[in-house]
Amino acid sequence: MKAVILAAGLGTRLGGVPKPLLKVGGCEIILRTMRLLSPYVSDFVIVTSHYAARIDEFLKDKGFSYMIVKHDRPEKGNGYSLLMAEDFVSSKFILVMGDHVYSEEFVKEAVKGEGVIADREPRFVDISEATKIKVENGRVAEIGKNLESFDCIDTGFFVLDKRIFEVAKKMVEREEIPLSDVIREAKTPVTYVDGKLWMDVDTKEDIKKANRALVRAAVKSSGDGFISRHLNRKISTAISAILVNRVNPSQMTVLSFLTGIFSSLMVFLSPPIAGIIYQLSSILDGCDGEIARASLSTSRKGGYVDSILDRFVDFLFLAFLAMLHPESLKVALFAIFGSVMVSYTTEKYKAEFGESIYGKIRIMNYLPGKRDERIFLVMVFCLLSWLNSIWIYWMFWAIAVLSIFRVVATLTAVALKS
Amino acid sequence: MKAVILAAGLGTRLGGVPKPLLKVGGCEIILRTMRLLSPYVSDFVIVTSHYAARIDEFLKDKGFSYMIVKHDRPEKGNGYSLLMAEDFVSSKFILVMGDHVYSEEFVKEAVKGEGVIADREPRFVDISEATKIKVENGRVAEIGKNLESFDCIDTGFFVLDKRIFEVAKKMVEREEIPLSDVIREAKTPVTYVDGKLWMDVDTKEDIKKANRALVRAAVKSSGDGFISRHLNRKISTAISAILVNRVNPSQMTVLSFLTGIFSSLMVFLSPPIAGIIYQLSSILDGCDGEIARASLSTSRKGGYVDSILDRFVDFLFLAFLAMLHPESLKVALFAIFGSVMVSYTTEKYKAEFGESIYGKIRIMNYLPGKRDERIFLVMVFCLLSWLNSIWIYWMFWAIAVLSIFRVVATLTAVALKS
Repeated sequence: MKAVILAAGLGTRLGGVPKPLLKVGGCEIILRTMRLLSPYVSDFVIVTSHYAARIDEFLKDKGFSYMIVKHDRPEKGNGYSLLMAEDFVSSKFILVMGDHVYSEEFVKEAVKGEGVIADREPRFVDISEATKIKVENGRVAEIGKNLESFDCIDTGFFVLDKRIFEVAKKMVEREEIPLSDVIREAKTPVTYVDGKLWMDVDTKEDIKKANRALVRAAVKSSGDGFISRHLNRKISTAISAILVNRVNPSQMTVLSFLTGIFSSLMVFLSPPIAGIIYQLSSILDGCDGEIARASLSTSRKGGYVDSILDRFVDFLFLAFLAMLHPESLKVALFAIFGSVMVSYTTEKYKAEFGESIYGKIRIMNYLPGKRDERIFLVMVFCLLSWLNSIWIYWMFWAIAVLSIFRVVATLTAVALKS
Repeated sequence: MKAVILAAGLGTRLGGVPKPLLKVGGCEIILRTMRLLSPYVSDFVIVTSHYAARIDEFLKDKGFSYMIVKHDRPEKGNGYSLLMAEDFVSSKFILVMGDHVYSEEFVKEAVKGEGVIADREPRFVDISEATKIKVENGRVAEIGKNLESFDCIDTGFFVLDKRIFEVAKKMVEREEIPLSDVIREAKTPVTYVDGKLWMDVDTKEDIKKANRALVRAAVKSSGDGFISRHLNRKISTAISAILVNRVNPSQMTVLSFLTGIFSSLMVFLSPPIAGIIYQLSSILDGCDGEIARASLSTSRKGGYVDSILDRFVDFLFLAFLAMLHPESLKVALFAIFGSVMVSYTTEKYKAEFGESIYGKIRIMNYLPGKRDERIFLVMVFCLLSWLNSIWIYWMFWAIAVLSIFRVVATLTAVALKS
């Protein structure tokens, strides 16, 4: 199947960048659309006008099979641009707006639809600005921005076949051919994809809104403990939403690693402050994954390096603290071993069984002792050590018992599972 | 495709057990053959005589689709038994002897062949007892035990089609129909599968020989360090060959775990003796995997549990030693962390990339610091501690530096790999 992306006649209201090349959620709009469509689409036909060269320049090393159809009448509207694609598609094809941002879950559903993909529960668009549709017998009866009564919102995503060109051709003499006129005239069928993340981007506020929404949708919750769900993720997603267009995931990994190392060195100056910075690094540790998933640039190598650096940060923080408090050294052996083993038992499961332990062994989601919880606990005990340094000793006991209990419970759960 | 297994007329020379039900390499001969064939074969036809009930009783809960064809003329020979299978196979089928032991690598090649599968470099059979074949134009010209001049040995494995029954039927009036007569008469094509592990089992010596060969073939060498290759495996395979028919892999895991725990407790009595027992547990640790693979009964759960128990043994040995030598406690933190991290970096790679790091990043095979090497080193230092306990301190330094160097090298190698 081919996909036609309409990228002509799109203004540069947003800082001189053609809208399809605008970065939203860390990824240029057109690149996001093409990446999300690529599991379903073999070739892309991009219809554009003034910005053909810039779009081509941008896409040429991205690994897609695409062609650019350039015309010089953008003022004739989207329907005219669609007509330009006629010779390059066969039977069924996807038509999508080059300035709309879609999420993976939206695209997954939308590609299975027919006709206009419409949303009855739009969560991210400004209804007053949106294109509304009145549906009769499952087909478009009326469509436009100013409908008083309507059933759903046009998402700018269509699954069409070549008959649409016959309708468009009859209008070719008109001064302007809005796509909505073609859709109305063709009595296009309507498929509902409700409440999923998609939006069009017109203002700087829209970009911020899209960044926030994409980052939130990018939270991978499996493996998150209590502290992550109720504290860390709330802060990390806010940070990621601000940074997603400025920082790449690797830079974020380095930043959170350096914060972690800094916290471990601060142990020698002030354990309470070190604990706070350690907790901060735990929050930042969520950002690299969020930014990677939001910008569709996850990498296995990134995941690998990040997880090993996390182990080093945890080790150094506990080891330096134990060195400062020699009475804790023996318990610290157990705390350090237990902390690494919590990760080891989880990763070894995936290595051996090829899938996440959280999906297969439900109790893993409720067992305490995940990294976010341990770090929060370490911070609390470090703060208490301001009152009395004996709390450091008890902190090692707490971490040792908690983590080794979790490891033994994990081992037991796997061994008993039939 | 179907497979016919000839299990009639097989004596009970070996302790009253019908040969197909004899345990070799921890797995009954017929069960091994069926497990190895099951990726290629949908149904099994087992031709037998006296032992039909025992074979049926044994196979009924093993999950195969099979039928038993019973006849009461085993003295008429293998060719007659083959004829009994005629109505139950269609066109192409596999014919295999119920008292022959095959390895996975043999079967993998053999199923792709045509006619008699023959071996020009038999490594495990007694040539004087074997059935020899003289080949002409790629077909059997002469076959028998007493050929003076021959090209290869009959492996008892055939890929045939229904035409073979026409030949056999012409002999039906004879007093005895040896399979070799049918094969000769049919001028069966010959396919060579040379030098792979297969053998027939006639004596107790044969069983021992087969056990040794199957255990040796079951060594999974990736991940083995220098000490494993040159010392541990030599001893562990000898132990496994003795135990393979008596002990299952889980029992072996428990045995090596208990030996490891025992060695860690011995630390309090005598570090040198503890070191020797620790090294012994390291040798035993190879046996569960060898027995599991030799007997075709590997389990992911077994691999999971074994690897986590190994981490506990390593931890307790080092932790107890450090507690006895408080001057080593700080370095011990690093040694313990490094030891677990060597395993973590390997398993996390498999979890993230879905394949073994040893296949993908060649340098991992040469980097020192694998478990077998660390344990051997610990033993050497423990022995030296008999002279001066300062060697325990240096042991922790050696393990810390070696393992953390390996971890950092692994991280670097993965990060730099494009």
